[in-house]
Amino acid sequence: MLEFDLVARIRQRAGSREDVILGIGDDCALLSPPPGMQLAVTTDTLNRGVHFPAETAPFDIGWKALAVNLSDLAAMGARPAWCTLSLSLSLPEATPGFVDGFLDGFLSLAQRHEVALVGGDTTRGPLSIGVTACGFIEPGMALRRDGTTVGDEVWVSGTLGDAAGALAQWHAKTGIEASLRERLDRPQPRVTLGRALRGIATACIDVSDGLLADLGHICKASGVAALLEVDALPASTSLQAAADLEKRRILQATGGDDYELCFTAPARARAEVLAAAQACATQVTRIGCIRAGNGVDAVCAQGRPWRPQNAGYEHFGLG
Amino acid sequence: MLEFDLVARIRQRAGSREDVILGIGDDCALLSPPPGMQLAVTTDTLNRGVHFPAETAPFDIGWKALAVNLSDLAAMGARPAWCTLSLSLSLPEATPGFVDGFLDGFLSLAQRHEVALVGGDTTRGPLSIGVTACGFIEPGMALRRDGTTVGDEVWVSGTLGDAAGALAQWHAKTGIEASLRERLDRPQPRVTLGRALRGIATACIDVSDGLLADLGHICKASGVAALLEVDALPASTSLQAAADLEKRRILQATGGDDYELCFTAPARARAEVLAAAQACATQVTRIGCIRAGNGVDAVCAQGRPWRPQNAGYEHFGLG
Repeated sequence: MLEFDLVARIRQRAGSREDVILGIGDDCALLSPPPGMQLAVTTDTLNRGVHFPAETAPFDIGWKALAVNLSDLAAMGARPAWCTLSLSLSLPEATPGFVDGFLDGFLSLAQRHEVALVGGDTTRGPLSIGVTACGFIEPGMALRRDGTTVGDEVWVSGTLGDAAGALAQWHAKTGIEASLRERLDRPQPRVTLGRALRGIATACIDVSDGLLADLGHICKASGVAALLEVDALPASTSLQAAADLEKRRILQATGGDDYELCFTAPARARAEVLAAAQACATQVTRIGCIRAGNGVDAVCAQGRPWRPQNAGYEHFGLG
Repeated sequence: MLEFDLVARIRQRAGSREDVILGIGDDCALLSPPPGMQLAVTTDTLNRGVHFPAETAPFDIGWKALAVNLSDLAAMGARPAWCTLSLSLSLPEATPGFVDGFLDGFLSLAQRHEVALVGGDTTRGPLSIGVTACGFIEPGMALRRDGTTVGDEVWVSGTLGDAAGALAQWHAKTGIEASLRERLDRPQPRVTLGRALRGIATACIDVSDGLLADLGHICKASGVAALLEVDALPASTSLQAAADLEKRRILQATGGDDYELCFTAPARARAEVLAAAQACATQVTRIGCIRAGNGVDAVCAQGRPWRPQNAGYEHFGLG
């Protein structure tokens, strides 16, 4: 199985859009961006054993590789359009069975968001999946990290801690509860919510490194601090069944890979936030507020300061 | 050394352009494409031991990772603008010394072509460098693979076989001649020539897999055949000194990694081709012609059919 067979396999299934003038198969793709729009571009690579357990199903690897990039577009409020895929493979993955399963996952998510796969590169190497995704956003409307100010409220979509709960069960070798595993393996990028929050949210980020870390990125970029009510964090019933209170706090505040949106909005926009979320059938929860200073402080329901006992979510640690 | 230190290191040196609204540091970069232009997008990943010998200097790894992508833009006639970098590292490379050397090479080539690094992702893993590059091209002006017709002449820029000659010396452990090594480690993307060939060349590709293979891609895309005069292939004096006639033919016709442009043009455009090449001080050589049929046939100076004895350049082989 040589590169060219693999590229042909990918090319046949890449899908298209009217703004794709030339897709996979030449030195470059040729794309026609809509007039007057800015491009939002993001890139994320997944490596086996670092970003997903080695035994993850090919479908789920493909799904997640695109999902984490679409989640970055969602966090900017951008409309996804195009992506490229760089796939490093060697045995045991360099088989038609793996590649077809991988593409099933990748392309089913792509179709769901009308994203065309416009460029592909395949090389020999340890399993690694690099994706660059591109979307459109009206000038001045992007949900950046640096736009929040003192007095804003902090919100999060969906529920937090499920993916980290699945990873904890995986580490404990106790078997992984199905709905938690679904959150880890098939994150749903909050594209519709991100779009709905344009003009309402003042800052936004997707929760990939863990809420405390990611909210910290907003604070740092905006030059403010945040107070986080850790017991206000929304938890799924699966997570409530799987973890006691303190463990749940840790999973929710420091676990990554949920790919929910954490965003800020002025208190006066509360009704607008709720209406936007309702319009896309997505739960949102107020979890704190922005104040002067720097860093993120967390408090329990009783108002006591809370700090996680472990050092945080380390899947991106190097060296 | 954690991801965030590394990202900060990259971010500080990423450079910028007026059309970069927001660079590294948010969920996405925000870019403002020029009105009326199409985007040319390409992605290529380099893995240690596959695309470069393990002992390659960090500077050269960085240079080459960007160069192979700019070469794809050159082959479309596009003007380079932006790139993203996805870097997987572990020890021994996950050190400031390696990263700084790598960035020296990557960014010196980026500056030379006024390319801004707008997105970065760093992960733990075996050394792998994924780059996506984006450039601009006027609608209808791209140099595609599918535009040549019977009667066109085939041209190539620069000299061929030097990079493959360096690899052959590396495999033979005889020591690598300096100017051949330079061609392998620091390919010069033919951006200026690609731009100059807009409106003149009918098809174009960069020579990365080997001339026979790459010219074959043009033939397949255009539905034609090519006759290649193997003894007309331009050779550097270093390659002439390093290899006898038959070995040189093999290196030139099947060796990859030269990143010269192979292109076609009508015979009546011969003076235009030469003028365009002269305007950018680049040598070009006529090496064959396009005819009806399919595939690429090669002949020696004596007109005898010529076939390479080895199976071709296999650095992209999988599995």
